[in-house]
Amino acid sequence: RKMNMAIGPVVVFGASNFPLAYSTARGDTASAFAAGCPVIVKAHPLHPGTSELVATCIARAAKRTDMPEGVFSHLLDSGFEVGQQLVMHSGIKAVGFTGSFRGGMALAELANKRKEPIPVFAEMGSVNPLIILPSVLSLEMDDVTTKIAHSVTNDAGQFCTKPGIVFLERGQKMDQVALELIRKIKNTEPKTMLGAEIHSAFNSGIDAFSKLLEYQASLTEEAIPYGSAAPAAFEIDQDRFMQEERFYQELFGPYTLIVRYKDDKGLHACLNRLRGQLTCAVFGAVEELRSQTELLILLQENAGRVIVNGVPTGVSVCPSMHHGGPYPATTDARFSAVGSDAIARFLRPVCFQNYPQELLPEVLRDINMYNLYRRVNGELCKDHVVHKKD
Amino acid sequence: RKMNMAIGPVVVFGASNFPLAYSTARGDTASAFAAGCPVIVKAHPLHPGTSELVATCIARAAKRTDMPEGVFSHLLDSGFEVGQQLVMHSGIKAVGFTGSFRGGMALAELANKRKEPIPVFAEMGSVNPLIILPSVLSLEMDDVTTKIAHSVTNDAGQFCTKPGIVFLERGQKMDQVALELIRKIKNTEPKTMLGAEIHSAFNSGIDAFSKLLEYQASLTEEAIPYGSAAPAAFEIDQDRFMQEERFYQELFGPYTLIVRYKDDKGLHACLNRLRGQLTCAVFGAVEELRSQTELLILLQENAGRVIVNGVPTGVSVCPSMHHGGPYPATTDARFSAVGSDAIARFLRPVCFQNYPQELLPEVLRDINMYNLYRRVNGELCKDHVVHKKD
Repeated sequence: RKMNMAIGPVVVFGASNFPLAYSTARGDTASAFAAGCPVIVKAHPLHPGTSELVATCIARAAKRTDMPEGVFSHLLDSGFEVGQQLVMHSGIKAVGFTGSFRGGMALAELANKRKEPIPVFAEMGSVNPLIILPSVLSLEMDDVTTKIAHSVTNDAGQFCTKPGIVFLERGQKMDQVALELIRKIKNTEPKTMLGAEIHSAFNSGIDAFSKLLEYQASLTEEAIPYGSAAPAAFEIDQDRFMQEERFYQELFGPYTLIVRYKDDKGLHACLNRLRGQLTCAVFGAVEELRSQTELLILLQENAGRVIVNGVPTGVSVCPSMHHGGPYPATTDARFSAVGSDAIARFLRPVCFQNYPQELLPEVLRDINMYNLYRRVNGELCKDHVVHKKD
Repeated sequence: RKMNMAIGPVVVFGASNFPLAYSTARGDTASAFAAGCPVIVKAHPLHPGTSELVATCIARAAKRTDMPEGVFSHLLDSGFEVGQQLVMHSGIKAVGFTGSFRGGMALAELANKRKEPIPVFAEMGSVNPLIILPSVLSLEMDDVTTKIAHSVTNDAGQFCTKPGIVFLERGQKMDQVALELIRKIKNTEPKTMLGAEIHSAFNSGIDAFSKLLEYQASLTEEAIPYGSAAPAAFEIDQDRFMQEERFYQELFGPYTLIVRYKDDKGLHACLNRLRGQLTCAVFGAVEELRSQTELLILLQENAGRVIVNGVPTGVSVCPSMHHGGPYPATTDARFSAVGSDAIARFLRPVCFQNYPQELLPEVLRDINMYNLYRRVNGELCKDHVVHKKD
């Protein structure tokens, strides 16, 4: 008989952009608790106060529900030392991380150097390519561009699922779509960014693009409120796009790159340049999508979530969610950071062979006392186990 | 909607000791096929002929069943070059390996150095501690020692699940158990080992132990048939055992180390020295086991499979099997190398959001045409999906 058990104590590194939904509580912490693992949170230095408040609530809840001492701990550090020591500690058995590629890979390398290497699930962001097929002109165009502009600029574009590249066919027919999208993005009001470092990285990125590509900013620097970012959208041709890696890397903030491709072959070539993604999205009429089998397969091979006629921002916490994807979107394409399946990251199976009933864990005994679905002799059922007489 | 899909092409490294059950076909290859992945087998150099024969059968079956060209490939190499190139190739998305710790870790390190790191599931062996509690004297003692001696010596002990350490309490009471077990192991006929390297590693190991511990071999070197190994069992006290790491490392072949522990505390201290295991086994009367909660938890924390009153050799291929365990037994305690759950190593989830019915994969459509269990709105069922009218 076999069941999943807790992998052991888990270290959680909170995300900068989700002080509530993906930091001290929720996300990794909730998954690890659900798996039966104690959790040590290394608070994100951009919101230590919020983290402390949430940690206090968790500690109180643990006490009220008679959880064992040490089921939850919360540590603050504005540098890397505490986090590194946690990952290297022999008592830690898994790590959950949401953040930058550099941060995630540093932790994964550290974990691999341990005497006992441990799994690090790092969600490291994504460019989230979005394709607007020509048949979009038969849909509610105004609605589509509004949706996409909002997805790019909402909360200053500080989502790992923000569409960072929008693909549009070359030629006059799609020019109006490009123009409208750029106009809507640039006309969006600047919003405050999460912190000084993120803000300056965004500004440097935009400056670099401005030097490379013809660009007219919508606001002068003086017109942007302190700490805020002016939404930006650049346009580039397929041939130029294919030349430089910097064009297909993530830039955190209210920005997207509109790539004009020649034809289906050109679009596929561009997509093949991109690496693993959390999401891919495609807008178009069903009739056109039906003939785009190769494109749809390409998208599902390169992403954890593929969206038809919808934007990637807005991640539901539900069983059907997959928030993950091939490297470098995450360190392991087989696991999700969101939804009930996120628990699987912190579980390992244990097989109990020839155990007498009374020594078995309750859920593995003949009597199915919690009315769970169990696989018995290959069949999923809620039955008690009945022993046939020989 | 979400389903698991093939992770991509898988490289399989066959095991030396299972030319049929865990090499070219079966095990990793069958799991990868079941997941929908093409497979490239790097044949084990100890049985290239068998591997070639099996590969021919698979190729023929693939042709007969109209599988796509390239669904299966088979490569021979007596060195490391072919294997290394396969693991480094950007088209490969996962690796399955069964073999030595050194071999498994070399592949895992290689895979981590890739531009796109990929998961390596390596099953790297185990010491498989087996504990005989004093209450065993109330059981069929003769039967127990016969079973264990057979598990140690069967097929020259060349199983990753062979019990490499047997724990017995100190003192006269258990002396007879130790004596009988040693006698039965040493009286077992020598059997042929798999290859020259494995044979010489076994002999060196036994020589080294003979120099450290008092030992009377049962057969003179001349009496052992060419290529065979004489079964061996050494006895050692807990205090000496705790001193040197070499005592708690795997030695492939018909050998076990009998460790005499002082008391429960001493036994736990010994077990805590051991690292992650594929299996742990314990023999004893149910009454005694009932009072050994701490021991049973210790075993399940350190192994993928725990056996009560049974031996670890003999691995059933079934849904309840877990052939895996914490590092260094494997590279990832969350996956199994045997049984239907072994397929999960080669699957990754893809979420299809807002897809029109006709574009969805068949198994995700409203109509449950294959009568599968699916989780619909949180409930496991075989129903078709019915949309409620607003």
